[in-house]
Amino acid sequence: MEKKTLLTDCPDAMGLISKITNICYKHQLNIIHNREFVDNTYNRFFMRTELEGYFNDKTFLLDLDHALPTGSRRHLIGPERKRVVIMVTKEAHCLGDILVKVLDGTLNIDIAAIVGNYDDLSDLSEKFGVPYHFVSHDGLTREEHEEALLAVIEPYQPHYVVLAKYMRILSPSFVSKFPNKIINIHHSFLPAFIGAKPYQQAYERGVKIIGATAHFVTNDLDEGPIITQNVIPVDHNFNAADMAKAGRDVEKSVLSKALGLVTDDKVFVYANRTVVL
Amino acid sequence: MEKKTLLTDCPDAMGLISKITNICYKHQLNIIHNREFVDNTYNRFFMRTELEGYFNDKTFLLDLDHALPTGSRRHLIGPERKRVVIMVTKEAHCLGDILVKVLDGTLNIDIAAIVGNYDDLSDLSEKFGVPYHFVSHDGLTREEHEEALLAVIEPYQPHYVVLAKYMRILSPSFVSKFPNKIINIHHSFLPAFIGAKPYQQAYERGVKIIGATAHFVTNDLDEGPIITQNVIPVDHNFNAADMAKAGRDVEKSVLSKALGLVTDDKVFVYANRTVVL
Amino acid sequence: MEKKTLLTDCPDAMGLISKITNICYKHQLNIIHNREFVDNTYNRFFMRTELEGYFNDKTFLLDLDHALPTGSRRHLIGPERKRVVIMVTKEAHCLGDILVKVLDGTLNIDIAAIVGNYDDLSDLSEKFGVPYHFVSHDGLTREEHEEALLAVIEPYQPHYVVLAKYMRILSPSFVSKFPNKIINIHHSFLPAFIGAKPYQQAYERGVKIIGATAHFVTNDLDEGPIITQNVIPVDHNFNAADMAKAGRDVEKSVLSKALGLVTDDKVFVYANRTVVL
Amino acid sequence: MEKKTLLTDCPDAMGLISKITNICYKHQLNIIHNREFVDNTYNRFFMRTELEGYFNDKTFLLDLDHALPTGSRRHLIGPERKRVVIMVTKEAHCLGDILVKVLDGTLNIDIAAIVGNYDDLSDLSEKFGVPYHFVSHDGLTREEHEEALLAVIEPYQPHYVVLAKYMRILSPSFVSKFPNKIINIHHSFLPAFIGAKPYQQAYERGVKIIGATAHFVTNDLDEGPIITQNVIPVDHNFNAADMAKAGRDVEKSVLSKALGLVTDDKVFVYANRTVVL
Repeated sequence: MEKKTLLTDCPDAMGLISKITNICYKHQLNIIHNREFVDNTYNRFFMRTELEGYFNDKTFLLDLDHALPTGSRRHLIGPERKRVVIMVTKEAHCLGDILVKVLDGTLNIDIAAIVGNYDDLSDLSEKFGVPYHFVSHDGLTREEHEEALLAVIEPYQPHYVVLAKYMRILSPSFVSKFPNKIINIHHSFLPAFIGAKPYQQAYERGVKIIGATAHFVTNDLDEGPIITQNVIPVDHNFNAADMAKAGRDVEKSVLSKALGLVTDDKVFVYANRTVVL
Repeated sequence: MEKKTLLTDCPDAMGLISKITNICYKHQLNIIHNREFVDNTYNRFFMRTELEGYFNDKTFLLDLDHALPTGSRRHLIGPERKRVVIMVTKEAHCLGDILVKVLDGTLNIDIAAIVGNYDDLSDLSEKFGVPYHFVSHDGLTREEHEEALLAVIEPYQPHYVVLAKYMRILSPSFVSKFPNKIINIHHSFLPAFIGAKPYQQAYERGVKIIGATAHFVTNDLDEGPIITQNVIPVDHNFNAADMAKAGRDVEKSVLSKALGLVTDDKVFVYANRTVVL
Repeated sequence: MEKKTLLTDCPDAMGLISKITNICYKHQLNIIHNREFVDNTYNRFFMRTELEGYFNDKTFLLDLDHALPTGSRRHLIGPERKRVVIMVTKEAHCLGDILVKVLDGTLNIDIAAIVGNYDDLSDLSEKFGVPYHFVSHDGLTREEHEEALLAVIEPYQPHYVVLAKYMRILSPSFVSKFPNKIINIHHSFLPAFIGAKPYQQAYERGVKIIGATAHFVTNDLDEGPIITQNVIPVDHNFNAADMAKAGRDVEKSVLSKALGLVTDDKVFVYANRTVVL
Repeated sequence: MEKKTLLTDCPDAMGLISKITNICYKHQLNIIHNREFVDNTYNRFFMRTELEGYFNDKTFLLDLDHALPTGSRRHLIGPERKRVVIMVTKEAHCLGDILVKVLDGTLNIDIAAIVGNYDDLSDLSEKFGVPYHFVSHDGLTREEHEEALLAVIEPYQPHYVVLAKYMRILSPSFVSKFPNKIINIHHSFLPAFIGAKPYQQAYERGVKIIGATAHFVTNDLDEGPIITQNVIPVDHNFNAADMAKAGRDVEKSVLSKALGLVTDDKVFVYANRTVVL
């Protein structure tokens, strides 16, 4: 017996749950877990179905394609661990959290490689036996640097690229290589404090709560679909540096949570929003 | 077109979602919203289905009964507002919150009456035009007092009885009149600080977080199925009275939230636990 | 014996705590509670001191003025309840929460009057015996409407004006009458979603957390000093209307908390920020 | 110029702040940060003062001793990093979090050694270059095992011993060697679910929130002074194993936060409670 996850999203219509679960039933696939959602604004149906049984992928998907309306997307995903490349700059907390969570089984992923534009974190990577590629941007144009990054990353054929406090902006050209496959942690409660130095901005505005946002990267800076967010309280005692230090725990837990949701195939992207089932 | 909610819970089996949604489809009932859950510990299936269409309740339920396994429970519930009796003692915050939320449409219930063992809140009740029954326990045995309470409450035939900081313990005999129909707010994060004076207990233990718990009342004090809980941070600056004052907001929001979930037919009770769909 | 609160803020210097507490000691005033804060960015000292004893305000303040550096502000505030005028539009939850909290002693203020640009909440106000002034903006210019509002509000000589979901923008001219005396609740986690329809904006951005912000009103829309903020989680199930409904509890608790902090003389304003001691 | 922290706690009396800050002023010590608290229940005064200047510890403390009432405790603590021994069993998340936080400067401590009753975490310890001592309890009485532990730990002369998911109960004899020096993380929101398998207990009770508690270890199991606590929401989808997995992030952040507070000399212990200044 195998376990697979079926992700379906399509224009909403009467009887969709019935049709899809009938096909599962016909194929003698047991539904372990099922969640669905209808977005009434966009009139779109989303369903995530964890199945167990003996799969004939081809006939199962053919049956689905006959049953589903035009404009449907469906993916049947096996239980293989996702391959992830992590990009970093200098800060250790997000990378460290992911490394420990892979070690202790909290995250079921394989870290193929870590790529940094500084060398600061090569030591931490080596502690965990993960190859570290130091790709300095020094003296390079953005274009040249991104070419160098791609030359290192693409051979790993990652399912996802994680920006674990990678502090440079990626060009649309780079992003287009990994559509909805790049996960970033932004150290603010988006859409507050878009752009550089969000903790400094937060301090200057005198906010009483700070946060972190994990999102897919699109061409628009900090505007991609949000996967998850969390916040912590602050007060007048916190200057920008104190906020940055206090924010580390929330940044890392938000990024790791988003990475878990995405690599467990729980996240749909539609209309620049995520549906997490 | 009408809207109704179908609640189904039964022993888990393959094809249940398919069977139930097929019957909805056959009856031309549109599924507006569907949520299901399988409790693998108890091998039990729960599903909540919001339906829209022209209902023939009798044939629809007959079809369901044929399809569902032995040990199933199913309820088809119309959109009528629930009738609620609120029991109070002296504190105004939970009662006040419910009254304002009914007024502004946050809670879709009818408050049939308010019953207090003190007269302190009759004034507030009258402000909102709700009948107030002052049923003093003074000079009565518990048995006599509860008889007097029942004599006042039962004629209203309430769907639910809400203990909005009603500070006396109800006997098993009273509770048995309203099985899974009495909702209590306990001013602690249960199961911490069961029983009397939870804020005093919390202060003495030196906790850094306090909370509130809304639960169905069963025969065992503070041991009934938990509907919802929430917490707020405290520190050494809070003595027991400060905690009590700070706790009011969380008490009232937890109770109102639970009341909304229950009267919106979102709460299943099974094995002394709630499944909220 | 009387209780008073001394608020001091001044340029930071060595020995300030010593100097101020020496003067209290000299006057035989017992310090019940003391909190201080030094803002190292602005090099400014803030101290809030709750005192008990027999006060000779004049000589006490003279002693302080001799001891404190140039640029100091100090206020000695008695325990009198603050007079508050509340401005509303149509939504009941914030007003209702304040009314109940005054009733049960959570807020130690006197509500002098409620002023609305619609008549919807006159009924609720009358329930609580508070005068309601319906000042329609219909057919008036902003200038004329604000004159009419002031004609109603100013005779009450309020210590604070509370905008409890008052949905019109106030002009700089109006705001200048009540410097750091107008408290607003904005239904977003500022500075996210400044301006109109923040829940609609939040829905469109696909955020996973929504919030509310209580702040003093200045001439810049939604840019005044933040007093307190709080948030609640949301997900893809929430459309803009669901967010608005879910946000009511956090809006009201944030506004009431801010109102309590301000009227308990715990809030300093400096450099468009608040220090809450 | 040096920086030191003065911790004072003593029976409350009029003029204490004045007396202490006068002595600082006399010694030309600049107060960088000052916090005080009076516990009115126990009539006790607590003050934490960060000082900067040229210290003559002996005369400064003598001046203090003359000024403070009988029953006072005062400590003048230099900026040296605290030496910590960490005890573990099999779970990596708390240990991993501390190791990464020491690496990136979030925690200003030195980890002298890690001691485990299993060998599972020796590999992780070695990655970070910290000596790991495997002290199996296999075949030993509790007394013998604790003697073996002490033989390993005591030569390090640790300021604090951290139980980072060390899953065996320590005897009063062991605990007495490190009074208010052993910090434990308990994986529940104490005092709920004292003892073994708190997540199993939480699951069985059907709670909607789970938590973690960092506390000093005393002779009474899980009854020592609480340093900090935090919680996360759960629902019917979580079985005991899911709760345990979800709880890891809150356990580690609570333990690390407590360790930071304690080693930054911010925590007073009095009457089985903590005052955190």
